Amino acid sequence: MDKRLADLLLERLGDDLVATGADIPERAWHDWSGLAPVEPLALVRPRTTSDVAATLELCSRHHIGVVPQGGLTGLAGGAQPVAGAIALSLERMNRIEEIDPAMATMTVGAGTTLQTAQEAAEAADLFLAVDLGARGSCSVGGVLSTNAGGNRVIRYGMAREHVLGLEVVLADGTIVSSLNKMLKNNAGYDSKQLFIGSEGTLGIITRAVLKLQSRPTFSTSALCGCRDFDAVLELLRAVRAGLGPSLSSFEVMWPSFYDFMSSSLTLPRPLADKHGLYVLIESSGFDAEYESNRLETVLGAVLETGAVEDAVLAASQKDVADLWAVRESVSEYSKVLGPITAFDVGVSAHRTGVVVEELEAGLAARWPDVVALSYGHIGDSNLHLVVHVPSAGNEQPGEAVSAFVYETVRAAGGTISAEHGIGLMKRKYLAYTRSPEELDLMRRMKLALDPAGVLNPGKVLG
Amino acid sequence: MDKRLADLLLERLGDDLVATGADIPERAWHDWSGLAPVEPLALVRPRTTSDVAATLELCSRHHIGVVPQGGLTGLAGGAQPVAGAIALSLERMNRIEEIDPAMATMTVGAGTTLQTAQEAAEAADLFLAVDLGARGSCSVGGVLSTNAGGNRVIRYGMAREHVLGLEVVLADGTIVSSLNKMLKNNAGYDSKQLFIGSEGTLGIITRAVLKLQSRPTFSTSALCGCRDFDAVLELLRAVRAGLGPSLSSFEVMWPSFYDFMSSSLTLPRPLADKHGLYVLIESSGFDAEYESNRLETVLGAVLETGAVEDAVLAASQKDVADLWAVRESVSEYSKVLGPITAFDVGVSAHRTGVVVEELEAGLAARWPDVVALSYGHIGDSNLHLVVHVPSAGNEQPGEAVSAFVYETVRAAGGTISAEHGIGLMKRKYLAYTRSPEELDLMRRMKLALDPAGVLNPGKVLG
Repeated sequence: MDKRLADLLLERLGDDLVATGADIPERAWHDWSGLAPVEPLALVRPRTTSDVAATLELCSRHHIGVVPQGGLTGLAGGAQPVAGAIALSLERMNRIEEIDPAMATMTVGAGTTLQTAQEAAEAADLFLAVDLGARGSCSVGGVLSTNAGGNRVIRYGMAREHVLGLEVVLADGTIVSSLNKMLKNNAGYDSKQLFIGSEGTLGIITRAVLKLQSRPTFSTSALCGCRDFDAVLELLRAVRAGLGPSLSSFEVMWPSFYDFMSSSLTLPRPLADKHGLYVLIESSGFDAEYESNRLETVLGAVLETGAVEDAVLAASQKDVADLWAVRESVSEYSKVLGPITAFDVGVSAHRTGVVVEELEAGLAARWPDVVALSYGHIGDSNLHLVVHVPSAGNEQPGEAVSAFVYETVRAAGGTISAEHGIGLMKRKYLAYTRSPEELDLMRRMKLALDPAGVLNPGKVLG
Repeated sequence: MDKRLADLLLERLGDDLVATGADIPERAWHDWSGLAPVEPLALVRPRTTSDVAATLELCSRHHIGVVPQGGLTGLAGGAQPVAGAIALSLERMNRIEEIDPAMATMTVGAGTTLQTAQEAAEAADLFLAVDLGARGSCSVGGVLSTNAGGNRVIRYGMAREHVLGLEVVLADGTIVSSLNKMLKNNAGYDSKQLFIGSEGTLGIITRAVLKLQSRPTFSTSALCGCRDFDAVLELLRAVRAGLGPSLSSFEVMWPSFYDFMSSSLTLPRPLADKHGLYVLIESSGFDAEYESNRLETVLGAVLETGAVEDAVLAASQKDVADLWAVRESVSEYSKVLGPITAFDVGVSAHRTGVVVEELEAGLAARWPDVVALSYGHIGDSNLHLVVHVPSAGNEQPGEAVSAFVYETVRAAGGTISAEHGIGLMKRKYLAYTRSPEELDLMRRMKLALDPAGVLNPGKVLG
């Protein structure tokens, strides 16, 4: 039956679109989750929405699972192939179809990389505000189907808030085209919301209309040393109130992260002394002098209250790079640490300070040589934690570490995933964050849209 | 059977919560849609979410419809009672439960009026940015279940974008509590999106967590006279790029509206001459001098290109009131016009100028003495049109006018409802804006969540 489906796909779509066996590139066997590679039954690389529809129609009829793939940069296994299922890569549907300056919108194929879309917006003197580290590889379809977060959520919101219209193919091959460009459209249910953040389990996004912003012409940064987490919260309130929509990042680094990464990589430490916590603030706007002065004024006030012990404002682009050097060193984990277990949990601001203490102390109690690095988008309640146990070598105790971390987050009423999603990796912990009623509602959605379980089988709900 | 349900409700919930017959205030017989009043089978006024759950459980079991009611200010009939169904008013669930300054969130009962919520945010030195004319009467639950728009959408988005968490009661009485306060939470499907904008047909919102903003400390306005609609689009691009997030309103008024309302009510006309179109721009921010100068600079540039023929900047709060006087005179329609047929359509910016010409000319061709007033939130693609035919007296040709207007909007690829929703009034035109596939998807959602059709029967999908 499986073999036959590959043949049927070949017959229907041709070998330009369908690869099987040795013709499937190994790249398609896994995403960035670190899970063991799995060979898909076939790899379909459609050029048009009709190709996607034909694929789904055929797979639905034969009860064969379809795993949608974009840039394969997901960290939770959402794009990881599943045995007996085909992979469907949107990479060829990568056209910037239109930029509409009057509506401030962009219409793109799902396979367009985020960076390509960002650059096209900029060329039209507009701004696509979604941004994340994987911008050069991740695709717009993946960004939307995981409701990606990233660095500017505090200012511009999650990926969801940048979507005005979607074209989606349902499990049975039905094409639902809702390429709306209007900011306001209350004609019935806003069904596109179903497909944003559901990781390809309810439908496959093929095209999107994205909302563009005015392009800020200036941004600057400051690095603050804070006494403790209460001081961080005081600083957050002060910059929110004082900078308003100019506040475009509020990144917190605990000494566990800041000291370890700066010394491991001999990175610049622009603040002379050590502090309880380090906070990076980015302010973006339209007037260099005004924005700089305002940031200086706001920080001056919190320096006076003592919440901020010391602060450095960037005076040049070189300074900005120095201030961000430690925060951006996260791409060097494999070099500095080797294998890690990484988390993107979320905890209410009030509890974050205590939760980090509990996590770091609890991990050290269980694994005395542990390296546990804490940092995150704390303006968005999003805490990253990276764990490495040197004595465990290549056999990191990922499961045990995860169980402890998620249990701690559950007790604090937090979320097991703030931005990376559930995929395969966090399925078994979903009930730590969602109530039985919430899970039942999700299952109802799945059953309504994909009763045969063809779409991204086993992901999110398992 | 119907009689029995009222008795069962009384028995279960008591006469403090349940009114029947003459005890039902006439206020509950209709909303602001202008539809003929209908006496509900009973009026339930729950005090708690459990009361709501008990009501739905009972009504579901007996197949009796439930019409949720908030401030009853809806213009599409979404809260209008339906014969044989009970009305469920959330008015008593009106508590501001919490304001969390560190998270910048507010947790409120669905029956809280928007103005009460706005004032509570302001008292905490924060800002609830959703705003509409009915603020003093409309409830938060109604605002969310209709995904209300209003005056600040261009800056802050629709109601949907202000929601972080919801508590909802499903058709069968199940309580789904997702009172999330975190900006980022990607743990599974974001089910709350289902209930925002679905007008109470998929579940009843009982509590909400709203996102609060930094409170702008200064706002100012300008009134511009433009040559034609192309000039309006040039102005829109210029203020978007130049003001960025300070741009908080972009309201366009056609001469049909501006001349008629200003002369009927003898309102100030701050611009000396007549113009092809009038545009109100509001800029909000944190520094009076900076914001005023920036607005002046941006307008100076478009005055030079000739797109803007004349402009007045407010120099005082009195000036602001004068600039907005005509735009805000819309509350005087009943005095100036008598009975009207009103529209909140949406059209892509490029086509709006032509569509308004088609609408005004087409209406005049059919009803020679017609008064057709055009204006709207054009920065959001939202066009309002108000139609009165003097010779028709109290027998306004609402159906024929609607058919013509919606047909014109359909031909232009627009939406029959940008912000007011579908309710009962626009059901028969929904297919003008939504494809068969989109409608089928909506029906699947309805079937998945309310298979017996108990929730707000006949609304939206009919």
